[in-house]
Amino acid sequence: MKIAVLGTGTVGRTIAGALAGLGHDVVIGTRDPEATLARTEPDAMGAAPFAQWLEEHGHVHLARYADVATDAELVINATSGAGSIAALSAAGAENLAGKILMDIANPLDFSHGMPPTLNPVNTDSLGEQIQRTFPDAKVVKTLNTMNASLMVDPGRAAGGDHSVFVSGNDSDAKREVTGLLKSLGHQDVIDLGDISTARGSEMLLPIWLRLWGALGTANFNFKIAR
Amino acid sequence: MKIAVLGTGTVGRTIAGALAGLGHDVVIGTRDPEATLARTEPDAMGAAPFAQWLEEHGHVHLARYADVATDAELVINATSGAGSIAALSAAGAENLAGKILMDIANPLDFSHGMPPTLNPVNTDSLGEQIQRTFPDAKVVKTLNTMNASLMVDPGRAAGGDHSVFVSGNDSDAKREVTGLLKSLGHQDVIDLGDISTARGSEMLLPIWLRLWGALGTANFNFKIAR
Repeated sequence: MKIAVLGTGTVGRTIAGALAGLGHDVVIGTRDPEATLARTEPDAMGAAPFAQWLEEHGHVHLARYADVATDAELVINATSGAGSIAALSAAGAENLAGKILMDIANPLDFSHGMPPTLNPVNTDSLGEQIQRTFPDAKVVKTLNTMNASLMVDPGRAAGGDHSVFVSGNDSDAKREVTGLLKSLGHQDVIDLGDISTARGSEMLLPIWLRLWGALGTANFNFKIAR
Repeated sequence: MKIAVLGTGTVGRTIAGALAGLGHDVVIGTRDPEATLARTEPDAMGAAPFAQWLEEHGHVHLARYADVATDAELVINATSGAGSIAALSAAGAENLAGKILMDIANPLDFSHGMPPTLNPVNTDSLGEQIQRTFPDAKVVKTLNTMNASLMVDPGRAAGGDHSVFVSGNDSDAKREVTGLLKSLGHQDVIDLGDISTARGSEMLLPIWLRLWGALGTANFNFKIAR
């Protein structure tokens, strides 16, 4: 499948690399490719400069948001939550229309200090904001409840015996995304319902962040035991 | 141990019955015992009239909030979240001082329709509100992330292979509560940190409610797979 991943951070790189490894035709989108490639310092999260990563992943290409979205059959939002609407707007509503838009971002708000809180929260979600802003895209919220390494290699924790959620208004889009998740090794994909259920999966972030601290590792995930 | 359970709903009854069954001296607190006993209709959640339940649990007694809190060594808040501060105020700050106050309530807000949202949320929690209002109590948030039946009989789902969280500022109080949870059959008790981590466990409620709908049963729980 032709897949556009928006976002050059750890999450974008990890999912792009894994999907390319599965044989998909993957392009990463960014606001300004020249600026992204010119960086020589680690990013805010400590990840190596993007150009270095790209060199090690020759089968993945980098281009402007709109350029990658035009040709894509499926678009993945892996930008920071606070910048997602702007990034998707740059990709172009007309380039997202009719396509599956996998939203794996979280609306983390660092303005109250650490740990970050959520904005929006409770009566709204980033997934819903994106669906409202791009009504012709088929938004599916997923994968936002775990570390990037586990997104693409669930077996790294508890032998993969844990859960991943999908939320969205379009059943066919959720079925397609479920197939993609299973191809990455996810065993237990739970359909929560329409896109408003993204409130629930996004609101897992606060306890995820505290568990990261309490357990001293990010190599854990939620399992719905039943 | 002398335990006061505040709240006569399904959660209060279930935990009171189970702790009495373990040999504890359990009293249930309510605002107006005569009014509680006079009810002949099922409550808002469909539970049988309290008087009927009490008749079947002769070893549990009912009294006013303040009367049960005075003699208790440990107090459990099993009232509705919206009424918790009022109920605890009626129990009396002086009767809570120096005691462990297990808060198992959730601040569900039904004013936006169904499903309920949370109030407070994100930058505050019911656990913190209670700790701020009763600074001399040792508040431990726990058990609020699962169905009442699982609180007292975790083996009912996945053979008990799931997790329960504790949040609180007092390590000794968390240790004592952890012992009580283990005596109820909980195998994996995770200490999230201070009482502000109650934000995280309370914010599990929205996805819990959606999972209840998606799975068609409340007999599930979160496991932190690692």
